[in-house]
Amino acid sequence: MPEFLHLIPPVEALDRLFKNLPDRIPPAELIDTVDCLERISASPVIAPHDLPEFSRSSVDGYAVRATSTHGASDSQPAYLNLAEETPMGSRPEVSLLPTQASLIHTGGMLPEGADSVVMLEYTQETAGSEIEVFRPVMVGENVILRGEDLSVGQIIIPPGTRIRPAEIGGLMALGIIECRVAIKPRVGIISTGDEVVPPRVSPALGQVRDVNSHTLAALVEQSGGEPVLLGIVPDSLEKLKEVAAASLVDCDMLVITAGSSASVRDLTVDAIHSLGRPGVLVHGVNVRPGKPTILAVCDDKPVIGLPGNPVSALVIAGLIVVPLIQRLSGAPRRTYTPSVRARLGGNIPSQAGREDWVAVRLVRKGEVVSAEPIFGKSNLIFSLAAADGLVRIAPDATGLEAGETVEVFLI
Amino acid sequence: MPEFLHLIPPVEALDRLFKNLPDRIPPAELIDTVDCLERISASPVIAPHDLPEFSRSSVDGYAVRATSTHGASDSQPAYLNLAEETPMGSRPEVSLLPTQASLIHTGGMLPEGADSVVMLEYTQETAGSEIEVFRPVMVGENVILRGEDLSVGQIIIPPGTRIRPAEIGGLMALGIIECRVAIKPRVGIISTGDEVVPPRVSPALGQVRDVNSHTLAALVEQSGGEPVLLGIVPDSLEKLKEVAAASLVDCDMLVITAGSSASVRDLTVDAIHSLGRPGVLVHGVNVRPGKPTILAVCDDKPVIGLPGNPVSALVIAGLIVVPLIQRLSGAPRRTYTPSVRARLGGNIPSQAGREDWVAVRLVRKGEVVSAEPIFGKSNLIFSLAAADGLVRIAPDATGLEAGETVEVFLI
Repeated sequence: MPEFLHLIPPVEALDRLFKNLPDRIPPAELIDTVDCLERISASPVIAPHDLPEFSRSSVDGYAVRATSTHGASDSQPAYLNLAEETPMGSRPEVSLLPTQASLIHTGGMLPEGADSVVMLEYTQETAGSEIEVFRPVMVGENVILRGEDLSVGQIIIPPGTRIRPAEIGGLMALGIIECRVAIKPRVGIISTGDEVVPPRVSPALGQVRDVNSHTLAALVEQSGGEPVLLGIVPDSLEKLKEVAAASLVDCDMLVITAGSSASVRDLTVDAIHSLGRPGVLVHGVNVRPGKPTILAVCDDKPVIGLPGNPVSALVIAGLIVVPLIQRLSGAPRRTYTPSVRARLGGNIPSQAGREDWVAVRLVRKGEVVSAEPIFGKSNLIFSLAAADGLVRIAPDATGLEAGETVEVFLI
Repeated sequence: MPEFLHLIPPVEALDRLFKNLPDRIPPAELIDTVDCLERISASPVIAPHDLPEFSRSSVDGYAVRATSTHGASDSQPAYLNLAEETPMGSRPEVSLLPTQASLIHTGGMLPEGADSVVMLEYTQETAGSEIEVFRPVMVGENVILRGEDLSVGQIIIPPGTRIRPAEIGGLMALGIIECRVAIKPRVGIISTGDEVVPPRVSPALGQVRDVNSHTLAALVEQSGGEPVLLGIVPDSLEKLKEVAAASLVDCDMLVITAGSSASVRDLTVDAIHSLGRPGVLVHGVNVRPGKPTILAVCDDKPVIGLPGNPVSALVIAGLIVVPLIQRLSGAPRRTYTPSVRARLGGNIPSQAGREDWVAVRLVRKGEVVSAEPIFGKSNLIFSLAAADGLVRIAPDATGLEAGETVEVFLI
């Protein structure tokens, strides 16, 4: 297996995969905006009208013409005649004279003739039908102008945008109650191995329950994909080829995790080779855990072979499968990842020349957050369940020292 | 309104609220483990058996007795007789003699008599039925011992744990296919204001569409709560009291957002006062945007009054409503929040003595990520839709300067 000799880091492996994927517009569906949370927009959304549609007060106060307040001060207030109060929720019928002021609430529509609002705290009602104004305002002060949020025809949400609460609010403000979003990519998941049984089965000695199908399904769901569980395939090349080929027709992407034996690993790469062109692009990634990862494109669809050990599979899926789901949804590649900065609570040795991902537990100690490394064999799923996140050790480092500041990527 | 004179920062406001909430175990439900993603565990989960249930090889190689490899080297290999291959998925029938080795795959059950595994790459088959071993192994080397991941009876998931893909995997590994999780807290959401109409309605001049119900519902959903939309209530104290009181019976928590007028704000505090003891704990928070926030506990349930302007409402909900949902789900208070470190792309002025949250857009410029401040009135929902996150300016700062490193909290 000559590919195995030229191991590349995960990011380069992903680059190679991306370059071999077609630039396709993902298929879309029209759904209610209230159901769009975390979905990816599929078409540009255009503002159907200005927002706001009328000039509004941004404070509680008096709508005035700015010139009438010029020179006003505590000792020399401007006196204005009280006009009718500005109504909430309807168009003010009054048209303001230059010498008049109209009580207005936050969000109220500015009456004709007014060009600014003086805040309530800088005014005082007199005994008569007048108010005193103690500060001058400028034209437009304390007013949100018509179209100030956005103008009719503006692109408000470009395609490829992840819909968050703010986007939902913006769409609702414009009365856009349905939205075109990318259909969630269907990610087929196959677990392989003669020794693997479904979780509801009580395993005989020598057998283990299928963990990977379920950790990966959860990760796919969390990342905006639709997991399609294809079950457990025994260590048979013919059977694996058959299930994989049939599944690829129906899915947008395929993930195969080895049972855990080396022979199965070989079966996986052979099975993937049979699925279509160009086939296997990367076999073996310069990372720990997760070295025996396979990245392939078969007839324009990504196919990923993950290690059988559950920790490796989950770590690598985070690095490879999650960005692929985003790509298949039409979202741009993320150029930053949030992290928690913490002080490393113990030394972590690492072999130079290889990227390492080490599980840590976060513990707050007064003002600092400490990242306590969790050592343990990478096969132990509960070492990951006990962790809050992962620390990356760059290939050129020979480890990290206790006390160093590290970035922890939450899992 | 004397409370308004003593403004406290959001964290202190939340502390005060938490102190006035009863320490209750949240109601729970038993659901399928595959549906537990992002839910909060409600009871301790105990390991029903050791994991793994038998000692397994962690590599591909030969199961051996360690003593038989002592002193082995490239020039002086140890010679061992080939025993039957260790089967995958069943208990090995062979019992290994000290002079024997058995081919074993990753995950295979160690045959009786073996105590370690020598990796395939340090062995070579000879023409006969022997192998050469070029490196010695120690007892336990390349083996995951029975119970090494966890032992029967161990608490594997304490109550209050957020279920992530790793936890789902751990539960599946143990055959725990159902799990008790906290029922999602029901968060009632009321929008108020005479000028507010539902998004599907075409507003008349002076009217605006309800944004807050929908941004808040999305945020509640994202944070593990169940949003209960209670509609738009006009500016009437009686009506607001009536809807709020009725809703509080059915919900675990209530959020009321003002239409946007000052009078409505007052209505909200009066309505909350009528809902139960101890009532309003905080009225006004030392933060921008979001100063006129109300925090209350009424008959053991949190009631939050949010500003009417959509940006303020969403920012404050992130600081107050999200941690409350976690608390009501039985999750411990989060002591760290992931962020993206970025270089500030412009000066941000700020008034000392007040905590500010400023929206920024993240732009990658070569090796650095730049946080470009989005200036604009806090009423503009699209200023938030255009943002990737928020930067906090501490009360003791008078602003931040371009070029400073800032933490950006993604929205």
